[in-house]
Amino acid sequence: MGPHPAVAAIRLAVRRVLHDVLTSHTRRSGPDAPPPLVLAACSGGADSMALASALAFEAPRLGVRAGGVTVDHGLQEGSDTRAAEVVLRMQSLRLDPAEAVTVEVGRDGGPEAAAREARYAALDDAARRHGADAVLLGHTRDDQAETVLLGLARGSGTRSLSGMAAVSGTDGRYRRPFLGIDRQTARKACLIQSLPVWDDPHNTDPSYTRSRLRHEGLPALEKALGKGVVEALARTAQLSRDDADALDSWAVEAERGVADATGALDVAALYSLPPAVRRRVLRRALLRAGSPAGSLFARHIEEVDRLITAWRGQGAIDLPGLVGVRRQGGKLVIRQG
Amino acid sequence: MGPHPAVAAIRLAVRRVLHDVLTSHTRRSGPDAPPPLVLAACSGGADSMALASALAFEAPRLGVRAGGVTVDHGLQEGSDTRAAEVVLRMQSLRLDPAEAVTVEVGRDGGPEAAAREARYAALDDAARRHGADAVLLGHTRDDQAETVLLGLARGSGTRSLSGMAAVSGTDGRYRRPFLGIDRQTARKACLIQSLPVWDDPHNTDPSYTRSRLRHEGLPALEKALGKGVVEALARTAQLSRDDADALDSWAVEAERGVADATGALDVAALYSLPPAVRRRVLRRALLRAGSPAGSLFARHIEEVDRLITAWRGQGAIDLPGLVGVRRQGGKLVIRQG
Repeated sequence: MGPHPAVAAIRLAVRRVLHDVLTSHTRRSGPDAPPPLVLAACSGGADSMALASALAFEAPRLGVRAGGVTVDHGLQEGSDTRAAEVVLRMQSLRLDPAEAVTVEVGRDGGPEAAAREARYAALDDAARRHGADAVLLGHTRDDQAETVLLGLARGSGTRSLSGMAAVSGTDGRYRRPFLGIDRQTARKACLIQSLPVWDDPHNTDPSYTRSRLRHEGLPALEKALGKGVVEALARTAQLSRDDADALDSWAVEAERGVADATGALDVAALYSLPPAVRRRVLRRALLRAGSPAGSLFARHIEEVDRLITAWRGQGAIDLPGLVGVRRQGGKLVIRQG
Repeated sequence: MGPHPAVAAIRLAVRRVLHDVLTSHTRRSGPDAPPPLVLAACSGGADSMALASALAFEAPRLGVRAGGVTVDHGLQEGSDTRAAEVVLRMQSLRLDPAEAVTVEVGRDGGPEAAAREARYAALDDAARRHGADAVLLGHTRDDQAETVLLGLARGSGTRSLSGMAAVSGTDGRYRRPFLGIDRQTARKACLIQSLPVWDDPHNTDPSYTRSRLRHEGLPALEKALGKGVVEALARTAQLSRDDADALDSWAVEAERGVADATGALDVAALYSLPPAVRRRVLRRALLRAGSPAGSLFARHIEEVDRLITAWRGQGAIDLPGLVGVRRQGGKLVIRQG
């Protein structure tokens, strides 16, 4: 008799990723290199405990070394004790290394963004210290659906609807094996394997946008639209990512025919591009000129676009990062300072 | 003193569309042709009564004839009486023609889709009978946001997130001047102008998906994500539409380099395309071969795509509309029957 379907599902998802990591490792380091190390990022919650357990099970069978890291954000009373507990749980799964790292969470961009930034910096550092080939993250299909809705709320288009990537970071270090697995399956797999899990009170704290979305927004949407919403959102992420990638590649190609040696952009050449491509070419040029990605919004691009499509002698446009754009003799001239 | 801001907003929106209609009319029929006729589709609800009132106000100032049509779907007791009332209201706005048309609603695709199909057939017919250049529809920014969420629930990508077009139908007959105007503004404009409005009980009937979305789904989403959600969804519609248009144009261009004289598709050429473009080329080929758009889903395209990207000797794939695809000697051969 095989394992419970939930356990089989999480293991299969991790196995596929390990195969991939192993293939890249062998290609890079040769067949006689020491085995690669893969770390699971583990908060002690159901998703990441399921992830750690599946990694611990699959890795030895494939000749991969398996470790785990838990990040202590220091945001709650007793978070250090909890981190030490998670380390014990990872050790009992025979993950090695199994360590806790403590981070200092700043305030930039709101509490969720600041915690995320500190967490990834700590994981990057742990991966470097241990020479890990990959760090697995336990984000599920439900997390993906929430991320798509958060992107939708920004209203900034296809890229912001593309959710989290299955592979991301420097050299594709971060892997998300569970993007096709629902939260319920991860929880079930922990239950079946008698793994203790820790429910982060932040996940139910209504002062966090994601928590409100999870406990109120998505259930209401499911009630209105039917049970398939989470799956539909996850599929939207994948399709949007592919669409955004294709359009970005078009923009890269198109900008060669648009920019002159000084970096000025030819208005007639821009005009002949489809609006979706033209806006991407403009955005890339503005970023290159020094406008910060976080402050450059769709409405800024729209305003620059009107220098091309609705020209009636407008003056220079001032953009975030002290970047200015003006139309001059059939060219858009973009300058910082 | 000018009109109330809500009234000014609806009039400006209609005026812009009428300018556009007039320009096309003059271009097509010459400067001495009789003035164009524009019809408002009017259910008697706040959105379309606001629309009818703005059309009645603006049209004579621009030398445009203005009329109105109300569709009696015959789905509710007394709908004929209500339609007659709407005709009287349109007449009191001096719309001419002002008529009610009765339709037979079928059952295909669910109650909302069937009613929509019958309604557009009746509006098409009315436009033809009266020789109207355009039919104005009262869809607001809120309707657009709902449409985007309905598309999101289908999970079929960028095109399904692009909502309703500002211009659609044969010769761009249908125009939606209010896509940038919120429902509250339309309602306010009716109140200010003392226009009686009729609240369709279907709009609050929870057996309708759109009604559930309006009264439960969207408010919950706003509560979780903040007040800007409707605006963000409407902006997503526009950006997604432009992205989908650009990718469709790429697919049209790409298929020339992919298909041979017999219509078979070259696997190597397909493989070199970005996935987003390749899937569109495949979808277009399958539609051309006779697979019906309404039954051809993302998962079908995925399966065909695996003949290219994950080839391991799969057999022929059967698709809706008796369309079959098989890989044969470096080609995809698509046949119906």
